[in-house]
Amino acid sequence: METARRVFRSYGFSPIDTPALEYAEILTGKGGDESDKQLFRFKQGDRDVAMRFDLTVPLARFTAQHLATVGTPFKRYHIAPVWRGENTQRGRYREFVQCDFDTIGTDSNAADVETLLVIHDLLVALGFERFTIRVNNRLILNGVLSKLDLLDQSVGVLRALDKLAKIGADAVVAEMVERVGATEAQARQVLELANPNITLDQLQTMLEGNEIGLLGVSRLRELFTAIATAGIPAERVALDVSIARGLDYYTGTIYETFLGDLPSIGSICSGGRYDNLAGLFTKERLPGVGASLGLDRLLAAMEELKLLGTQATPAPVLITQFDAARLGDYLRIGRALRAEGINAEVYPDVKKLGKQLQYADRKGFKLALIAGSDEFATGVWQIKNLGNGESQTISEADLVKTIQVLLSK
Amino acid sequence: METARRVFRSYGFSPIDTPALEYAEILTGKGGDESDKQLFRFKQGDRDVAMRFDLTVPLARFTAQHLATVGTPFKRYHIAPVWRGENTQRGRYREFVQCDFDTIGTDSNAADVETLLVIHDLLVALGFERFTIRVNNRLILNGVLSKLDLLDQSVGVLRALDKLAKIGADAVVAEMVERVGATEAQARQVLELANPNITLDQLQTMLEGNEIGLLGVSRLRELFTAIATAGIPAERVALDVSIARGLDYYTGTIYETFLGDLPSIGSICSGGRYDNLAGLFTKERLPGVGASLGLDRLLAAMEELKLLGTQATPAPVLITQFDAARLGDYLRIGRALRAEGINAEVYPDVKKLGKQLQYADRKGFKLALIAGSDEFATGVWQIKNLGNGESQTISEADLVKTIQVLLSK
Repeated sequence: METARRVFRSYGFSPIDTPALEYAEILTGKGGDESDKQLFRFKQGDRDVAMRFDLTVPLARFTAQHLATVGTPFKRYHIAPVWRGENTQRGRYREFVQCDFDTIGTDSNAADVETLLVIHDLLVALGFERFTIRVNNRLILNGVLSKLDLLDQSVGVLRALDKLAKIGADAVVAEMVERVGATEAQARQVLELANPNITLDQLQTMLEGNEIGLLGVSRLRELFTAIATAGIPAERVALDVSIARGLDYYTGTIYETFLGDLPSIGSICSGGRYDNLAGLFTKERLPGVGASLGLDRLLAAMEELKLLGTQATPAPVLITQFDAARLGDYLRIGRALRAEGINAEVYPDVKKLGKQLQYADRKGFKLALIAGSDEFATGVWQIKNLGNGESQTISEADLVKTIQVLLSK
Repeated sequence: METARRVFRSYGFSPIDTPALEYAEILTGKGGDESDKQLFRFKQGDRDVAMRFDLTVPLARFTAQHLATVGTPFKRYHIAPVWRGENTQRGRYREFVQCDFDTIGTDSNAADVETLLVIHDLLVALGFERFTIRVNNRLILNGVLSKLDLLDQSVGVLRALDKLAKIGADAVVAEMVERVGATEAQARQVLELANPNITLDQLQTMLEGNEIGLLGVSRLRELFTAIATAGIPAERVALDVSIARGLDYYTGTIYETFLGDLPSIGSICSGGRYDNLAGLFTKERLPGVGASLGLDRLLAAMEELKLLGTQATPAPVLITQFDAARLGDYLRIGRALRAEGINAEVYPDVKKLGKQLQYADRKGFKLALIAGSDEFATGVWQIKNLGNGESQTISEADLVKTIQVLLSK
């Protein structure tokens, strides 16, 4: 989360927070599909309230309400818990943290391109090297379906297409013919979209004369050109016309992100462009684009790929304590290290060195500082490298510098 | 919050988070004083749950439950919302954020001293210069009351003492005599504790022969010695034997922190030592010490003292956009700045410069980068200083370096 915050901020996204509780009517929206959302809903006094089940509805409410203050483009990130009354299972909890970022109030493709850059830089900052951001644009699909006169059947078409991996091409074609009323030729053309080797040129040919579809192609073309110039390695971004991500919400660019070393875990960062964020709350049209980092999946992946440190302390240096009368000196050295940006903890009790080093090992400290009466008498400190067990004796004047060098190794 | 996290981590405190919802019986504890806590309580399925009303009860539950994993000393910070069904008013909300840090599992005075150091460094990091951390030790009060044979009446004594500022010394003495059954001489001796000029030496004399009280004096003496050695300016810490902070919870050192420029706002960081954190949840005795930063008060104070930046963006640099075909170049420069730790935002739309600079002003960007066809043709960028309106033209090779220099001013 610290890394995500840092990357979001580096792109100019500001943090927002909204209350955990919203009026229930805000969360249920127009529809009566409350049970789908598995709301935690209750009366607080005479208020009918519920705990937010995602960060999107609160964002819509917040943006509509504070539009005059925040203005557009409005770039925000929000990392916060949401609640759903689900049955818990491995990787699914009733309370879990969502991590969203969005750019609201612009139709510009620049925001779509930047969204991809943020996803890319975020994964690199987290320590991933092998990953693919798959991109699509819903306009392409709409264009193809519209050319085939199947736009009204898009739900059924996509439902069939989604089964491709499971039931194979022929069965998908059969389903489109039977249930959607497509001809076999139409079905085969739709199936072409799932061809992993399809190119933007081929799509452009397929979509000739269809303005909407061609807009999708040209926006993706611009995206690929811009990210290459911006320095994103080509192998980390791939066209995938088969991804759709929810039929009603996304209307333009779509992103899904898969780990090269762990594709089976699914997309760890997904999102897309939408036409209107807050239609329920304001008449002002608010187009936007954003993505959501799947923290639970991500953590599972980082654990499996050993990208999570074993440190259980945010401090690399433990200052052991030998002589209670010297507490001020231990604390003074701690502050001297912190002043140079080195996190340091002073062990609170005067215990046997073995006990203190055992604590240091368990927590994953890198260095331990040791000073008793001999050291104080001569103005030196012992530095014990907990990685290789080596010790050295250093004058206090050189202590901070030496520790900086040791930690940079 | 970012600053608080950084300071807590620099002292080796680790973040924890606990669920917003706990089983109601955890939060109500033994007593039936649920209404005091103004719980948001409801049924979720067949579970009787409630939203946490503070971070202390969840910490106690968490520590008791995970003691074998976290071990002691256990240093944690927790910045998270809590909920209380109060009537809202200025500065009082039903959802508000608490910001706590604690060291658990040690009786050592080193942890008490460190707690004071954290409070000090935190306020300095937030930009405060004039503040006083007032310290006391509950043992001193207990010692004085015990010497006067009033220990059993401590609640009544303190209730009277608390009114000193409001009703004056004579009325306090009268109340102690009438309601607590103290003699006038006893009452006058208790009143001596509220003397702002009292010294540890005087307290030592007062407490002669009383072991508990003298332990309180010696721990405070050790604290003042250690913080002086550790480099804390003497004027920022003061003995104040009159502070008590809740009768039943704190048992040792007590902290309250007042701003020199805004004392009327009350204590902005308070805490103390307690004997046993989690008696309700484990038989293991868990002594500890910690403090809580009052975020709402703190923000009000920072706003009043103009310590809050006017920036509404975490990025100092806005890269304006002139030529959509050059999007990749704008994004590339953005990434080059970020690689050097400079947050930068690319304006998403190709709009008139005036519009883009208006956005930059409103959000508080410090510098705007400008490049159109002329600049791209000659490989230069314009940097506009939004503070003084000055512009300069810089070759792309020198761009990052120049921006670093401008931002460091």
